[in-house]
Amino acid sequence: MSYLSKLISFDNPAFCGYITYSSILVLKMMVMSILTGSQRKKHGVISSPEDAAMLKGKQIIESHPDVDRVRRAHLNDLENIPIFFLAGLGYVLTDPNPAIALNLFRMYTLARVAHTFVYAIYVVPQPARGISWGIGYAITGYMAVRTMLHFGRF
Amino acid sequence: MSYLSKLISFDNPAFCGYITYSSILVLKMMVMSILTGSQRKKHGVISSPEDAAMLKGKQIIESHPDVDRVRRAHLNDLENIPIFFLAGLGYVLTDPNPAIALNLFRMYTLARVAHTFVYAIYVVPQPARGISWGIGYAITGYMAVRTMLHFGRF
Amino acid sequence: MSYLSKLISFDNPAFCGYITYSSILVLKMMVMSILTGSQRKKHGVISSPEDAAMLKGKQIIESHPDVDRVRRAHLNDLENIPIFFLAGLGYVLTDPNPAIALNLFRMYTLARVAHTFVYAIYVVPQPARGISWGIGYAITGYMAVRTMLHFGRF
Repeated sequence: MSYLSKLISFDNPAFCGYITYSSILVLKMMVMSILTGSQRKKHGVISSPEDAAMLKGKQIIESHPDVDRVRRAHLNDLENIPIFFLAGLGYVLTDPNPAIALNLFRMYTLARVAHTFVYAIYVVPQPARGISWGIGYAITGYMAVRTMLHFGRF
Repeated sequence: MSYLSKLISFDNPAFCGYITYSSILVLKMMVMSILTGSQRKKHGVISSPEDAAMLKGKQIIESHPDVDRVRRAHLNDLENIPIFFLAGLGYVLTDPNPAIALNLFRMYTLARVAHTFVYAIYVVPQPARGISWGIGYAITGYMAVRTMLHFGRF
Repeated sequence: MSYLSKLISFDNPAFCGYITYSSILVLKMMVMSILTGSQRKKHGVISSPEDAAMLKGKQIIESHPDVDRVRRAHLNDLENIPIFFLAGLGYVLTDPNPAIALNLFRMYTLARVAHTFVYAIYVVPQPARGISWGIGYAITGYMAVRTMLHFGRF
């Protein structure tokens, strides 16, 4: 039998690592909403008129660079992390070397946390953001190409 | 054997509920495109110059609060629902109590539908939107933390 | 036993096709970042002040229609492709006719590539973009409805 479900096992470190680091990335993306909210509150920037009442006594403005920066970092997560979820799952089903797989998941997660940090928390000059983005991009691309070639059912 | 695939079964109510409610959430997100299109048509707001021909005879404007509101609700879905897809799948693989799992999936789906309703269909004063968003956020966070601790392959 | 994991098999063309075409869609979405970067460089549009140093000697502007166009195409991918990942997986687990499933995955992928082409690479008058978007939308909707009815655990 060539069920792939033997790879979807508590005994497969690659699969467990995929689920663990994907959960961490979910939590990391959830932090973006908190960051956005705190920047909105700090600068008095609301997204909708009905939110004005929540910032009463504060001068309401249309936008602020700090809010926009967190929003861009969040959008960059949306562009990159859901495709990693898919590529990472496909990659686990190609039965990769577990140690390599775990290291790729670790590197990807670290790179995305670093990306948010240098983009939206403590701004570091380029190419800090470019490099952290590029590491995640390269890992996702490697996994997607490997998965596509392994399954190859066009 | 510790295959997790025994949980990926038609006999597991938690898995079937996950797939059912995730499909409903896919359809709910698809509705956002219809809402956007109808608001664009109503107010004559186009996203690209080549769309002008489709609204002929109508005054074309750059943007309108009703269009922007639906777009924000859609973006909020993009920020929240794909991470639920991942967290929910991980959670099902932790072998949760099926009744609790089903209730969490039901609550999450109701909360996201309510979020769209109070944000983009019939605007209700805050904290209606904040509460509906927060319920979904808390459920996703609970599932992601539980999954991370259960698999724990760092 | 009614494990669904027998469908998650190297012998199931529907599952292999799902993984193959989803990987292609991941790579297709990754291309959007390259397109955005090249349009930004061409027109001197930066997203963050710290990027100005990377375009030295060039006049920096706030925005450009070509950059905005690629960004809209990318956002449209984010609105449509992650929900296809979920709907497509659910659909494979309904044990569809493999030939039909493969053709739907092929059509979906072609439609999304065409959407990007007519939206952001070589602008074609409407309804080219609307049709390519609509094909992908209809396929996702069909899969989500079929999955919801098949599992039906409300």
